[in-house]
Amino acid sequence: MVVGFGSEGSVTGARRLRRGSGKETAITDTSPRTVRELGEFGLIARLNAGRTQVPAVLLGPGDDAAVLAAPDGRFVVSTDMLVQDRHFRLDWSSPCDIGAKAIAQNAADVVAMGAAPTGFVVSFGCPADTPVAFVDGFAEGMWAEAGRVGASIAGGDVVRAPLLIVSVTAFGDPRRAPVLLSGARRGNVVAVAGRLGWSAAGLAVLGAGLDPGSFPGVVAAHRVPQPPYRAVLDLPEDLPITSLTDVSDGLLADVGHIAESSCVAIDLDTAAVRDTELDPVARELGADPLHWILTGGEDHAFAATFAAGQELPDGWRRVGRVDEGTGITVDGARWSGPGGWESFAEGR
Amino acid sequence: MVVGFGSEGSVTGARRLRRGSGKETAITDTSPRTVRELGEFGLIARLNAGRTQVPAVLLGPGDDAAVLAAPDGRFVVSTDMLVQDRHFRLDWSSPCDIGAKAIAQNAADVVAMGAAPTGFVVSFGCPADTPVAFVDGFAEGMWAEAGRVGASIAGGDVVRAPLLIVSVTAFGDPRRAPVLLSGARRGNVVAVAGRLGWSAAGLAVLGAGLDPGSFPGVVAAHRVPQPPYRAVLDLPEDLPITSLTDVSDGLLADVGHIAESSCVAIDLDTAAVRDTELDPVARELGADPLHWILTGGEDHAFAATFAAGQELPDGWRRVGRVDEGTGITVDGARWSGPGGWESFAEGR
Repeated sequence: MVVGFGSEGSVTGARRLRRGSGKETAITDTSPRTVRELGEFGLIARLNAGRTQVPAVLLGPGDDAAVLAAPDGRFVVSTDMLVQDRHFRLDWSSPCDIGAKAIAQNAADVVAMGAAPTGFVVSFGCPADTPVAFVDGFAEGMWAEAGRVGASIAGGDVVRAPLLIVSVTAFGDPRRAPVLLSGARRGNVVAVAGRLGWSAAGLAVLGAGLDPGSFPGVVAAHRVPQPPYRAVLDLPEDLPITSLTDVSDGLLADVGHIAESSCVAIDLDTAAVRDTELDPVARELGADPLHWILTGGEDHAFAATFAAGQELPDGWRRVGRVDEGTGITVDGARWSGPGGWESFAEGR
Repeated sequence: MVVGFGSEGSVTGARRLRRGSGKETAITDTSPRTVRELGEFGLIARLNAGRTQVPAVLLGPGDDAAVLAAPDGRFVVSTDMLVQDRHFRLDWSSPCDIGAKAIAQNAADVVAMGAAPTGFVVSFGCPADTPVAFVDGFAEGMWAEAGRVGASIAGGDVVRAPLLIVSVTAFGDPRRAPVLLSGARRGNVVAVAGRLGWSAAGLAVLGAGLDPGSFPGVVAAHRVPQPPYRAVLDLPEDLPITSLTDVSDGLLADVGHIAESSCVAIDLDTAAVRDTELDPVARELGADPLHWILTGGEDHAFAATFAAGQELPDGWRRVGRVDEGTGITVDGARWSGPGGWESFAEGR
């Protein structure tokens, strides 16, 4: 993508970029109010204005491609697409929330490999009448969350689309051998860092039409996940983790991925995952908080397995153990409820 | 993304993946016909079935993130989003065409930095009733085009969306210092490798409702661009290129990016860009072929600048020269027609 070169056909508002002059000529002083008035290159400039790239981004927006450092000689990459009214709702989330969430869920995937995020590229599809204020808030959320993990937005693409679509690709520098799903071994301890069920509880509050202010913690957790990045990034490099993932589809489903990839069974201990902070929300809604905790995705907690004798590092708590066999059990019994997020399920 | 683990809620068709069994149990022998029946993980498996990763993809689909080699210690990255009815139409392009086009336009951006493509990640949004046959054709097109540049599809994401959306991020290994837009110097020769105006001519044929078979060459060029990757990738590493880009928005616009980034003027020579193969199409449609050649995007030809004394390498032809000043001229005069693709222009 290229910043700073406009196409006359599109610019109906404040600024007209004259081809060939190399200069921007203001022909009115009206600020652009929509993406149509801003134009493609104005939109790109707006998404990047006043931002500073981290040193790992060797070449940022403005050329055919970006260039990132990969000091390890390899890099980790993950990608996720968010679609309006499926992954976020404009009446429930601010533009800033949406930008932050898109970055957080991708950063969590990179961290879940034991890698440190370095940069992101973002494709942004929107209708031409999208307010410029949306773009500004969205950019603010993206850049703030990227900064939280020490990374920046290295580039992207903007396209016209009938609804808002955000596609993020995240890059990371491995700080140790990538930690896979497949390394869990019999006798390992299953541990979690971060909150479980908060995003699902927040979604339930919003879905029930309750005042979001009545349960601000869980609503905020739904709007913008807070992955506990430091619980992974601050681990000593020589501390062995046998497997690692982020909880994006629900604890049962994501620990299930570890069990299946590692050809082991995992038993989860409900006493260890309970969270009394969810009880008032559950009472209000007549819900079972354990259901949120076991099957709610999008909190982007981290789940890992450690050797049995390993003292758990700061921020981690034991929630289960690895056994011989296959499959997931909860307190020794098979879970009978629904399992977690599935993209093409009925009604979703 | 994780392959091989299913969620019972979604699988209404042929195969039910039982949580915890670690085994797929066929409960009917009806083949799934839609993505809803296939389910999220079935769809992911379908996109990857029978495919082999290139050696640069150290870890492919199935974990939280992929891992790619970056032997140079840095990597090139570019991303593009394609939206149904905006960047492709299902009545004009086959699923295979759409997959190939999505990969080709991203591969061209990586090659336009002087880098060799290594891998791609692809996010794919589609309605739940998308036919499995579409997925199969799309995967075939993606993998074939990736193979053409010596790369593979390292991972991705699948989501439900109200229309088809394809977001591709491409990676490349720099084979020389990245070739930027900003290096053109007064006296340089402007040269092009590949076809210009063919995609625009094909679009005009389809838009006019003509039989695509009457002008199969340009229609095929519109459906799947054929970037002349080898014209860049086979250049000797010590052959100096002062600037390089791919023609995605139209020759005027893309050479304009070089001129603006390099703070130079560029004059294009219409005699050098004319293509008599477009004349019959233009006659049939009463169009000016030069307009397609100068402003038609999506052919993903490469445009570069070379030192004046440099003998042009195989596959390259001289189309203009770099002068002092700013802006683009055509045969010494300013171009008066519209300039090229702009994403948020009226009517687009």
